[in-house]
Amino acid sequence: ILTVTLNAALDVTYDVDALVAPGTNRVRSVVQRAGGKGVNVARTLHALAHDVVLTGFAGAEVKAELRTAGLHDEFVDTPGRRTITVVDGVDATVLCEPGPVISAEQWAFLIEQVHSLAVDASAVVLSGSLPPGVPEDAYAQLGRAAGDHPVLLDTSGPALLAGLAATPAVVKPNRDELAELGASPESLLAGGAGAVVVSCGAEGLTAVTDAGSWRARPPEVVTGNPTGAGDAVVAALAATVAEPWPERLRDAVALSAATVLAPVAGEFDRAAYERFRPAVTVEEI
Amino acid sequence: ILTVTLNAALDVTYDVDALVAPGTNRVRSVVQRAGGKGVNVARTLHALAHDVVLTGFAGAEVKAELRTAGLHDEFVDTPGRRTITVVDGVDATVLCEPGPVISAEQWAFLIEQVHSLAVDASAVVLSGSLPPGVPEDAYAQLGRAAGDHPVLLDTSGPALLAGLAATPAVVKPNRDELAELGASPESLLAGGAGAVVVSCGAEGLTAVTDAGSWRARPPEVVTGNPTGAGDAVVAALAATVAEPWPERLRDAVALSAATVLAPVAGEFDRAAYERFRPAVTVEEI
Repeated sequence: ILTVTLNAALDVTYDVDALVAPGTNRVRSVVQRAGGKGVNVARTLHALAHDVVLTGFAGAEVKAELRTAGLHDEFVDTPGRRTITVVDGVDATVLCEPGPVISAEQWAFLIEQVHSLAVDASAVVLSGSLPPGVPEDAYAQLGRAAGDHPVLLDTSGPALLAGLAATPAVVKPNRDELAELGASPESLLAGGAGAVVVSCGAEGLTAVTDAGSWRARPPEVVTGNPTGAGDAVVAALAATVAEPWPERLRDAVALSAATVLAPVAGEFDRAAYERFRPAVTVEEI
Repeated sequence: ILTVTLNAALDVTYDVDALVAPGTNRVRSVVQRAGGKGVNVARTLHALAHDVVLTGFAGAEVKAELRTAGLHDEFVDTPGRRTITVVDGVDATVLCEPGPVISAEQWAFLIEQVHSLAVDASAVVLSGSLPPGVPEDAYAQLGRAAGDHPVLLDTSGPALLAGLAATPAVVKPNRDELAELGASPESLLAGGAGAVVVSCGAEGLTAVTDAGSWRARPPEVVTGNPTGAGDAVVAALAATVAEPWPERLRDAVALSAATVLAPVAGEFDRAAYERFRPAVTVEEI
């Protein structure tokens, strides 16, 4: 499985006693981790023992961290982008760097890279927002570069609409992203998607496909860290491209709920995943 | 001239519209620059066409930036330390990372490095605070490693007091640092320093040495960015070890005032420096 992350970032978390702004703050501890939606998908797939290769654009620190985590990185080198989160026990203050502008040469190089890496892939995952410099139809171009291999597209806004032109096998907006577009699952299907899976937070998923429509619900309401829950849905759908839809959705809901129980995006509670999977309810609609 | 910076940092400046804390902030622009007192000294000496070599502990990003600036870097590799400054036009919020803990092996390696690099040096500059992991008498050990070469020590608190044991040629506390220690120039001389140069902000310098005592004042009150003004004093004193004290102080005051006129630490207004130098007043006290 190949994951493409155009906007990978080094997620840096600073622990401070109490943020003084304006003022000078001594940081107590620094935690750094490669982030980005496609990176979370890849971590989850790697933990499930799938072969996964990561590409897209990333800086040296992201690449180093992924290698330390045992992931196979084929990212195109760019200057890094960081997201700093300052936490003081109660509140979080986030600083998002704009990231480097991607040149036409870097973009052309990535298209070639995806074209050649996709040859061995059972699925190609395209996740996240677009960095400055890439064309608005970036995901359509990447989808075409993936050839006949099933493409899963998880993005929002104009990048999602433009990506439909490459007829991705699955698009996965969440409910808010769908509402923001003023779109329905049916309109995205008509626009070119093979299936539309809408994540609805604690309520589970709705899937609208050529083969039928289903609603899948978790067996219990889980509370925890919802960051990365949508990426777990994409990971499960990418790992199950050969299976029937009800099975795929069962897996996606269980993995997503188990991800909410883990403290950081890209991880999940394995015991909960095993427990949830047979208990997910899937009904045709 | 060899400069030793134990606590080099990547100084990152984020420009935001208005910092929202807690909240999520889009960073408009990112400026990165290698920082640390010894780095500022080295930049100033390099701009004055002196041969300068930098060592100490630094991360890959600091080393890369120094090389881009044309400086000769012999830093011992460590994970990086960053200082983030968020500016929103009016206020600044600073986040200082603690930095890596230096291991006994890294410390022993640096001592060897300073010992061999000092051989060709006309002066050895030891600047800044101590990172976690190094011995409290770090500057005494480094001073001894420099052998007979004149050592200039610019630090504060216990690190300064412990450093006196290696009989540095010059120590340069500022007035506040001296007060904090409850020390006088005379007590630091008695403790082992060859000369004590106290920087007094816009009022200039006071030097107490075995050869006499002087006060040096700038020709005019300059306003601007005082960060790095003390490092300019050290740079001037390091570049003039063979000259008589009144000349050294004249140079130090002129360069320091010219640094206040430059927007960033490690730079100075060259025309102002040339203009100030003959106009500095030096009186024996």
